[in-house]
Amino acid sequence: MKFQRLALIGCGLMGGSFALALRQAGLVQHITGFSASEKTRQRAVDLNVIDQACCSVAEAVQGADLVLLAVPVGAMNSSFAMIRDVLQPHALLMDVGSTKCDVVAAAQATLGERLACFVPAHPIAGKEVAGIEHAESTLYQDRRTILTPLPQNSIRQIQTASQVWSAIGSHVSQMTPKAHDATFAAVSHLPHLLAFAAVNALTAQPNGSAFLEMAGPGFRDFSRIAASESSVWRDILSANKTEVLAQMTHFRAALDQFENALNSSDNSALQQLIQQASDVRSAWTLQAGNACNKASED
Amino acid sequence: MKFQRLALIGCGLMGGSFALALRQAGLVQHITGFSASEKTRQRAVDLNVIDQACCSVAEAVQGADLVLLAVPVGAMNSSFAMIRDVLQPHALLMDVGSTKCDVVAAAQATLGERLACFVPAHPIAGKEVAGIEHAESTLYQDRRTILTPLPQNSIRQIQTASQVWSAIGSHVSQMTPKAHDATFAAVSHLPHLLAFAAVNALTAQPNGSAFLEMAGPGFRDFSRIAASESSVWRDILSANKTEVLAQMTHFRAALDQFENALNSSDNSALQQLIQQASDVRSAWTLQAGNACNKASED
Repeated sequence: MKFQRLALIGCGLMGGSFALALRQAGLVQHITGFSASEKTRQRAVDLNVIDQACCSVAEAVQGADLVLLAVPVGAMNSSFAMIRDVLQPHALLMDVGSTKCDVVAAAQATLGERLACFVPAHPIAGKEVAGIEHAESTLYQDRRTILTPLPQNSIRQIQTASQVWSAIGSHVSQMTPKAHDATFAAVSHLPHLLAFAAVNALTAQPNGSAFLEMAGPGFRDFSRIAASESSVWRDILSANKTEVLAQMTHFRAALDQFENALNSSDNSALQQLIQQASDVRSAWTLQAGNACNKASED
Repeated sequence: MKFQRLALIGCGLMGGSFALALRQAGLVQHITGFSASEKTRQRAVDLNVIDQACCSVAEAVQGADLVLLAVPVGAMNSSFAMIRDVLQPHALLMDVGSTKCDVVAAAQATLGERLACFVPAHPIAGKEVAGIEHAESTLYQDRRTILTPLPQNSIRQIQTASQVWSAIGSHVSQMTPKAHDATFAAVSHLPHLLAFAAVNALTAQPNGSAFLEMAGPGFRDFSRIAASESSVWRDILSANKTEVLAQMTHFRAALDQFENALNSSDNSALQQLIQQASDVRSAWTLQAGNACNKASED
């Protein structure tokens, strides 16, 4: 497996790290790159992340056998449209988005005949700092990457996509887009929302600042993810709204059980609820490949 | 400040560490100890935590000028009753409970003329492991201890109580019992309850185990406190039920705001809610003295 030409659409942390990793693994000959900002794409050349800065998506994608779409959610639709018109029929196109149903819907609405080229991907990796300056070839090493293949994809194409991520050190899993979004709504998106809400609930009280001064390490860890970037999480929560709301319903039911046990002074029910959570959490350990060093994207 | 005789009622991690710290600071001449289990009090002697194991609370407290009550919440009331009958009028009596209004109510109902001796204390320290074997003289060093004095206490007595904890390295603050319980409901008790509920919400779903396998470091930190000990947290949550339920109401209001923003697809409101939390949490840092190494009690 070797690619002639990688087109990087979006020269940021995620895309830049992918380009560096592919080059280091000897998997690509030539890398073209496009970013909306001319300064950013020039910096990508200066940092040897890409070989050639292009002034348009079309110019970058022309002749590429591998295309990575690593743009903010808001630029996804228009990028698909521009890619479609120049994409080679046998090229492999992937994204790096944190939600998948919305990206798949956009691809289905836009890519037309080229839909078969698109293998949606979510590499669960990142850093607390964004931008091409922080790109590094090891970003995806020992991280998990989830592929959510489409019915239109060929087996060979899915295999190639999987090999690309494996070759740069990632542990690859496959899920349906729907299962992906449900899973991450449960273990990442809702926890973020709960942490945001818990901090806001404190801030809303007259004594909120005084309370916060007394908070200890339990609160520190519980609320760490509440410091995440607002535009990133606005996009994730709104893109995955259906699943997040479904998880919220499950959470409210669990919360009601605690409230009922407290209100009825049923200490044995209360202890049982705590014991259940404590047993599950004590037995849980972080799976290899799930570790990541970005607070905003896990 | 030097005490002739410390009586330790409850020879566990908290009480044992207090005894060791006081002895190391040269603040006490003789230490008597009582625990319901004969084995435990004998071990406390063997480990040189106490000088003399006593068969009853009365025997231990007889002649003591300092009494530390470090028993589980369930044994608090009966201990107060037994202490009352033998406590010297000028002795200093303190507890180490995580909630204060309930302890104060029990003391008011039970201690009678000796109520003035009681200065309620909450040292915010501990370990993930319990028991006299894990007691150490440094447990309270650089930790915060909150005193919630009673109207019956003399200024001198409150000063002495404060000096005791300072002498063993603790940062001492004062609050009313009510403010104490409201504060810790907000920054510790409700966060624990939310973490318990979040884990239970996952477990309640058919795909819960599969979801948990994909969870990353964000979930790990957010849910760490859900592994806490169930009997400890049953007691804390039920003892502080009023304040915990009040905090739950604030939390539900904050949660509703997120739900409304999602339901109405109001992305600008959604971003504002996240931004507010992110700003507050980014600016927050753990205060000196609030650090602690026990997952179950912060």
